[in-house]
Amino acid sequence: MEHDHISRAFDNELNELKQSILIMGGKVELMVSNSVKALVDRDTALAEKTITSDHEVNAAEMAVDERCLELLALRQPTARDLRFITIALKIVTDLERMGDQCANIAKRTRELNEEPPLKPYIDIPRMAHWTEVMIKEALDAFVRGDADLAIKVCKDDSFVDELNNQIQRELLTYMIEDPTTISRAMKLNYISKSLERIADHATNIAEMVIFMVKGKDIRHTIA
Amino acid sequence: MEHDHISRAFDNELNELKQSILIMGGKVELMVSNSVKALVDRDTALAEKTITSDHEVNAAEMAVDERCLELLALRQPTARDLRFITIALKIVTDLERMGDQCANIAKRTRELNEEPPLKPYIDIPRMAHWTEVMIKEALDAFVRGDADLAIKVCKDDSFVDELNNQIQRELLTYMIEDPTTISRAMKLNYISKSLERIADHATNIAEMVIFMVKGKDIRHTIA
Repeated sequence: MEHDHISRAFDNELNELKQSILIMGGKVELMVSNSVKALVDRDTALAEKTITSDHEVNAAEMAVDERCLELLALRQPTARDLRFITIALKIVTDLERMGDQCANIAKRTRELNEEPPLKPYIDIPRMAHWTEVMIKEALDAFVRGDADLAIKVCKDDSFVDELNNQIQRELLTYMIEDPTTISRAMKLNYISKSLERIADHATNIAEMVIFMVKGKDIRHTIA
Repeated sequence: MEHDHISRAFDNELNELKQSILIMGGKVELMVSNSVKALVDRDTALAEKTITSDHEVNAAEMAVDERCLELLALRQPTARDLRFITIALKIVTDLERMGDQCANIAKRTRELNEEPPLKPYIDIPRMAHWTEVMIKEALDAFVRGDADLAIKVCKDDSFVDELNNQIQRELLTYMIEDPTTISRAMKLNYISKSLERIADHATNIAEMVIFMVKGKDIRHTIA
């Protein structure tokens, strides 16, 4: 009876932990979306807001970390729950680094908004959209323990990589044809690479989920 | 008496854990060194060896992860030891991703060795050297709980960033002056960025060490 009571309380705590991670993920998705919206709409105030909101993501990481430590110390979980909490610890680090990348995108956006636009932005918003979907699906896969969804995320990463390569090549042609575009092209290049890194982090999360669910060394076998 | 016995056994286990992480770090440092040596010496066999050795780093990550889970489940540590083990879990993830970056460098090196050299490589080996020192010092800081050494690692990162920017700018002048150099310059660009990402991972480790030692939210305050 007492045991059931503790077990139910722990289940609630784990659900709260999942919710905290999803809320943190939502903040990061919004940062991705806003950092690129600030570029497309030339909205420097939105870029500033994105840079500031990185603090919330940092605070969320530390809060989840502390909560995981408390649960490990107080509940002394084993097996599946232990694995879940240790992977939660790793996942929030990836989310926090995504937030850093979004703040970097917003900083380059702030600079780009001071100059005339180099070109209409088409592929960068597409990349941002795919990256947001990857973050959302990687975290859904985590809280649901859904390996199939996690595998989809890993596969989607190659599409984001391809978009990044395409953007890099296109920007290079601008730089070669007109050296006065170099500074702006390099900043767009940086933004594209940052989005690609965010997608990599989502893939890292998805790989950990596959590992968590399957419990074996699939982490390093998915290309 | 019995308690002392368990406590000594746990101390030994923690020391073994530290040793495993240092050994894993040594493998990664060697991968950094060899991937760039393969470029400078145009030694494709060494590049191949570096790509293969990534599997060892992946295996080391999984072994340390499993060991951390065992220690959490069996010893149910609290306070300082709990924090140490959870940070170990995060650190090996950074080390594993450094290994991935080294394998990527070696793959680009393999391609570059098929073509005539674009230029003498001076800054890339310097970057690699600094990056190796950062990895070594970040891990030494971790096992010794040395916050001062960790702060030094964070500061060294800006030097690596500067070298990367310098390399990017130099490669750009090659590409603009002679478009036939673009493919090679982009690969060198990629190698330089990979080294910069490895240094970022070392900085991430150092920030976690500072957090572990000081026990407060210094993680997001060091620029």
